Amino acid sequence: MTRNDKSPIGAWLVGSRGSIATTVVSGAAAIAAGTAGAVGCVTELADFASAGLVPVDRLVFGGCDVVTTPLRKRAEQLASAGVIPAHIGAAVGEALDRAESEMITIAGPGTGVPQRVRADCLIKALADFQARTGCEQVVVVNVASTEPTPDSDPAYQSLEALETALDTRPDVLPPSSLAAYAAFRSGHPFVDFTPSVGARLPALDELARQANLPYAGNDGKTGETLVKSVLAPMFAYRGLDVRSWYSANILGGGDGATLSDSEACDTKIRSKASSLSKLLGYAPESTVRIDYVADMGDWKTAWNHVAFQGFLGVQMKLQFTWQGCDSALAAPLILDLVRLAAFAQQRGESGPLSEFGFFFKDPVGDGDDSRLSGQYDRLKAWVAGAPAPAGTAS
Amino acid sequence: MTRNDKSPIGAWLVGSRGSIATTVVSGAAAIAAGTAGAVGCVTELADFASAGLVPVDRLVFGGCDVVTTPLRKRAEQLASAGVIPAHIGAAVGEALDRAESEMITIAGPGTGVPQRVRADCLIKALADFQARTGCEQVVVVNVASTEPTPDSDPAYQSLEALETALDTRPDVLPPSSLAAYAAFRSGHPFVDFTPSVGARLPALDELARQANLPYAGNDGKTGETLVKSVLAPMFAYRGLDVRSWYSANILGGGDGATLSDSEACDTKIRSKASSLSKLLGYAPESTVRIDYVADMGDWKTAWNHVAFQGFLGVQMKLQFTWQGCDSALAAPLILDLVRLAAFAQQRGESGPLSEFGFFFKDPVGDGDDSRLSGQYDRLKAWVAGAPAPAGTAS
Amino acid sequence: MTRNDKSPIGAWLVGSRGSIATTVVSGAAAIAAGTAGAVGCVTELADFASAGLVPVDRLVFGGCDVVTTPLRKRAEQLASAGVIPAHIGAAVGEALDRAESEMITIAGPGTGVPQRVRADCLIKALADFQARTGCEQVVVVNVASTEPTPDSDPAYQSLEALETALDTRPDVLPPSSLAAYAAFRSGHPFVDFTPSVGARLPALDELARQANLPYAGNDGKTGETLVKSVLAPMFAYRGLDVRSWYSANILGGGDGATLSDSEACDTKIRSKASSLSKLLGYAPESTVRIDYVADMGDWKTAWNHVAFQGFLGVQMKLQFTWQGCDSALAAPLILDLVRLAAFAQQRGESGPLSEFGFFFKDPVGDGDDSRLSGQYDRLKAWVAGAPAPAGTAS
Amino acid sequence: MTRNDKSPIGAWLVGSRGSIATTVVSGAAAIAAGTAGAVGCVTELADFASAGLVPVDRLVFGGCDVVTTPLRKRAEQLASAGVIPAHIGAAVGEALDRAESEMITIAGPGTGVPQRVRADCLIKALADFQARTGCEQVVVVNVASTEPTPDSDPAYQSLEALETALDTRPDVLPPSSLAAYAAFRSGHPFVDFTPSVGARLPALDELARQANLPYAGNDGKTGETLVKSVLAPMFAYRGLDVRSWYSANILGGGDGATLSDSEACDTKIRSKASSLSKLLGYAPESTVRIDYVADMGDWKTAWNHVAFQGFLGVQMKLQFTWQGCDSALAAPLILDLVRLAAFAQQRGESGPLSEFGFFFKDPVGDGDDSRLSGQYDRLKAWVAGAPAPAGTAS
Repeated sequence: MTRNDKSPIGAWLVGSRGSIATTVVSGAAAIAAGTAGAVGCVTELADFASAGLVPVDRLVFGGCDVVTTPLRKRAEQLASAGVIPAHIGAAVGEALDRAESEMITIAGPGTGVPQRVRADCLIKALADFQARTGCEQVVVVNVASTEPTPDSDPAYQSLEALETALDTRPDVLPPSSLAAYAAFRSGHPFVDFTPSVGARLPALDELARQANLPYAGNDGKTGETLVKSVLAPMFAYRGLDVRSWYSANILGGGDGATLSDSEACDTKIRSKASSLSKLLGYAPESTVRIDYVADMGDWKTAWNHVAFQGFLGVQMKLQFTWQGCDSALAAPLILDLVRLAAFAQQRGESGPLSEFGFFFKDPVGDGDDSRLSGQYDRLKAWVAGAPAPAGTAS
Repeated sequence: MTRNDKSPIGAWLVGSRGSIATTVVSGAAAIAAGTAGAVGCVTELADFASAGLVPVDRLVFGGCDVVTTPLRKRAEQLASAGVIPAHIGAAVGEALDRAESEMITIAGPGTGVPQRVRADCLIKALADFQARTGCEQVVVVNVASTEPTPDSDPAYQSLEALETALDTRPDVLPPSSLAAYAAFRSGHPFVDFTPSVGARLPALDELARQANLPYAGNDGKTGETLVKSVLAPMFAYRGLDVRSWYSANILGGGDGATLSDSEACDTKIRSKASSLSKLLGYAPESTVRIDYVADMGDWKTAWNHVAFQGFLGVQMKLQFTWQGCDSALAAPLILDLVRLAAFAQQRGESGPLSEFGFFFKDPVGDGDDSRLSGQYDRLKAWVAGAPAPAGTAS
Repeated sequence: MTRNDKSPIGAWLVGSRGSIATTVVSGAAAIAAGTAGAVGCVTELADFASAGLVPVDRLVFGGCDVVTTPLRKRAEQLASAGVIPAHIGAAVGEALDRAESEMITIAGPGTGVPQRVRADCLIKALADFQARTGCEQVVVVNVASTEPTPDSDPAYQSLEALETALDTRPDVLPPSSLAAYAAFRSGHPFVDFTPSVGARLPALDELARQANLPYAGNDGKTGETLVKSVLAPMFAYRGLDVRSWYSANILGGGDGATLSDSEACDTKIRSKASSLSKLLGYAPESTVRIDYVADMGDWKTAWNHVAFQGFLGVQMKLQFTWQGCDSALAAPLILDLVRLAAFAQQRGESGPLSEFGFFFKDPVGDGDDSRLSGQYDRLKAWVAGAPAPAGTAS
Repeated sequence: MTRNDKSPIGAWLVGSRGSIATTVVSGAAAIAAGTAGAVGCVTELADFASAGLVPVDRLVFGGCDVVTTPLRKRAEQLASAGVIPAHIGAAVGEALDRAESEMITIAGPGTGVPQRVRADCLIKALADFQARTGCEQVVVVNVASTEPTPDSDPAYQSLEALETALDTRPDVLPPSSLAAYAAFRSGHPFVDFTPSVGARLPALDELARQANLPYAGNDGKTGETLVKSVLAPMFAYRGLDVRSWYSANILGGGDGATLSDSEACDTKIRSKASSLSKLLGYAPESTVRIDYVADMGDWKTAWNHVAFQGFLGVQMKLQFTWQGCDSALAAPLILDLVRLAAFAQQRGESGPLSEFGFFFKDPVGDGDDSRLSGQYDRLKAWVAGAPAPAGTAS
């Protein structure tokens, strides 16, 4: 399958009225209009120039959300928080309106009717979006709030069991997985930028492979974990013995409020913690705290305290403080992932995209290399069509 | 040439009575005695196990210094500063005495006699050391204080001009380069762990190649620059725009006192600053401060403040504080470099060892890749006998 | 009552085998022997010179603990952790033995017999200690682990109800309050350096006043809260609007392990948090985390992130990192408190010593001024015999 | 002299087109219009409510500058840097225009004509300003860039010598002192918010006393030094032994550029360093670095590393990072100082206002107490008309 350059590509955002989605739509419009550069877009680096990915100005946005805040209002909030520059905010109003017209409001769990109804509703919305916009390809990306981890369920174990359950039970799948189901049933790749379960169920993997569709995730690596993924290898390369790694994260905004709910927070902490022992080759004492501080708004600050031993047991310390804006860090990666997932579909990839580990805290697939450098090299090689370089797995 | 496992290998330390040298000798003895592990030794990692490098307990130490502080006294100072654990200090007395008996006191610059005399004196000392200890191979390593950068000199441009100048002028070469000269004339590899000029003169490169000898350096990457070499690529991989990178370093000890001398400090700062633009692909606003704080003793603390722009120009910050003990960080790398330089000589390597860039702030040779990850992969491939992996140069 | 300078003063430490107690005994011996100065002793400052407090070398130590670790062993652990310098450790062995001979092992809760038995046992031990050592005065200081906050109990409301309950019920009082009871019944002042309830029950206050005895506490202000007690007034003085104050504390050791028990931790966090709104005059968003990191040993690191607004709502930040050794911070204050509590008893003070707020996170008494500066001035004025200065309460 | 409440008070800003002055004018207008609160104004705290200071909306602004950037343009720059909120920027245009119409452009040094000409020019401008605005009182405040410290000069030693020199020499006084001269000659108090020499010359002190005028300064305490002035007393109160105090400051903007000129920077560093030994009672090892990082714009970040010893010589550390906006921190203090200096004049104060030490890094006058808490209490007592409280000087 070869992408037709005449055809735009659709980006269907689950959680389409949130900070990330609004920043994505605003930023893409500003880049298209030439009033902003694509800072933070990995696919704009020279290493990816030859792949012929879809230009940012050919992306068309739509999506679904459980909330109904108008996009322009959300954009204003982001502008006053300094996430979207004031002068850009003005220029992108029309793009926000266009995206707004492609969004539907969906019901959350707990309606009591079989979940098949909600699945069909999403599938129809995707078909309508595709029809209206003329997009040959659509990529479904989950940027909604983090969900609690669901209990295990026999319906998750096979596609057949899942289909039966959808017909009879109201809340089989968590919303992220329902979105993945609808994407695959509609013939679209699925990307999960959250730590929610998403496509990571045997039944959904079966469906993706059956439909010859790729999926990627989970949990965008935008801040503290990004830094960890380069610092931990540093200690490993040098044979330094990390004894304890403590991290405290404070954040406000909708994401922070969700995480102050302890179940969702557990999901997130598990996702953040999983990589450290992979990166080091052993598990140091490790604690991750995530705390909601409303005053932080869209900003997140992480403090990490790393105690390590060197030669003859000498105790040393590395501390870092990361002050980042999650929406601004996530948005360009969403553009990357839409472009790359569409590219993967064109290349005929199916199942989990292990090569996308560079973007995620808890990547689907083999995850041979948790080092950011190795993940970058692997992604670059994949885009170039070559297999991963032999030397990069440590 | 194949190393005879029966034969020990000599490590001739220039600056043999300093904190690093004393920690090297003490630590090697403790490792040999089984009272300490080789934490921080890169060559002890699984990736290097198959190379058959000389075991640490086969290393024999000697060296030269301009000062005469007894090694046991220096070791006591390091023990009370927490660099050498008290219980290890006691166990290594004999090893310190043995190394002490293999050290000579050398004159500094300014004696007025032609420098040939001092060169011959060093060459003789190396021959005596080798004869006494039965070492087939000796590696000369400079761990002395940082020197001011010398002015350019016609005598540096060719071996012939250098030889003539040594016969007639008293202070042609700075001490680090004189040590490199003596090493090469004695048939030994040379490693410079300091930012001094060392072997990096055309005349000395000519001599090394003529004698089929390898050399490595410069300026051991032990702390702040090590962290930079993983953080800067992180920003580059993600297309984030680093606007300014400020670093303040405070340190005490002999090294700190030397650097409070502004000329030596300039040499050091140049060495530290050189890598940032290579790592990023552009030169952000950058300042490096090194300040002497006597109270810090053998400890160094570095604060780095990195301001970067993300999507739509949003300003973000990363700060880190590194609290390290330089001697404890450097010592295991000295053991690595002695083992690897001896191995290089056995492999017939000649001239600058580009593959050793992993260890240095300002590596000799081609320096294709300044990323720590790429440097590690390159070193690993070199030890394994393979060429550098294709994918690692960014 | 005038102190007879011939008579020593006893310090009865509840939790006498812990890190703080061991550091107190070792340090007092080193000060007496002239091998250490009294760094960190407030009562050694020039402002307190004229009060004629008991000299440190006239203090005699005893105490009780539920554990039986020998003091010399604990001192060795502290020496290898760098809390007690190696050279001092050797010199204080005799003093440790002497203190050891004055310690009793006590049972914890849950024995089933009426608590009167345990109270009498403590009272007898105090009488024996006094008889053996010839101390006219004894100060009882609680440095044991933090307890969970007990539920309210009618027995706490009056001395009469308490006495009845002690005769019949096995676990009326938590250990800290039992120690206060025994102290008061024995005619001794009581100081609580922990956040436990200690003397802060109406029944015990009644007993103290009846016996004309002073008491002080609670929760020694040794680290993060100390810093808060000067930083928060800074914001208040300048009319800057603190929006959020987040703090993460990591610590190891016995104290850390106790606090990883969530109930004790709640007690501690309440104690730490209480002062902020007093200091500022309003309550900003505030979170305090205390996490156990075994690797930290006797060391504690606190990171605080303060977000504040200035003129026209501009957002600014202050962060600090405190790296302290709790035992070394607490021990000199214990010496201060023993000296000052004995002095208070000589002065005829009775009931809560409000003037000791300088030392505590959650002071007993009126607590007019939470600013460290005001608390210092008040303590100084009290020692000098004058009323608190008029201008210091903000 | 009693202030007539009908009469406005003039604030004549030297450096009237800089960031601080622009923020002052904008902020005062916003406060007057009710679109901003007076956050960061000390004189708005309850402690100062009874003094009857001039309301902010009765202040009238004028001034002089060597640059000619229009105030509206500077305000726009500050708005885009986040110093002045966008919505306030719009509302204050008229106030900026009004202030603009009261500003004159002055020549810098080096014109060659006797300085008397420039002095008279300033005096006339002040008279015109007073006449036009009907201000009974005018306070002259220096918020211009930091000057190099002038060499000593006989003309500075007496008013007579100064007057003679002004008649004959072109550059007798640095600009800040010329402003103080003109202020005093015009019958106005003078406040120096910069570290420049300002009124601190015997000749100018003589003039101020002769004219029965008060003056205050120097060097507004807005950031790092503010924090030092509460942290250093904390160590002193607790008898902790500060061994070294290192600070690195990075800042952009006009102030940063001026300080990258080494002479002005020396003046600044001296001013910042002077207080530490006063606060502690001894001089620890101390280094202050100020570096220009253009990218920081109007923001300043300071990192401080404090190493201190506690009981038995245990080494501990406190680090802090201050991220502040100097203009936003300074502006409300300028409003305070204008109000308070006018009040001082009304009270008949003459010569250096020691009671204003709270605002300055290097206060004029006796400076009995460098602790921020003592300085606050002293200011409060002075405003209340009482002498300073006895207990606050440590």
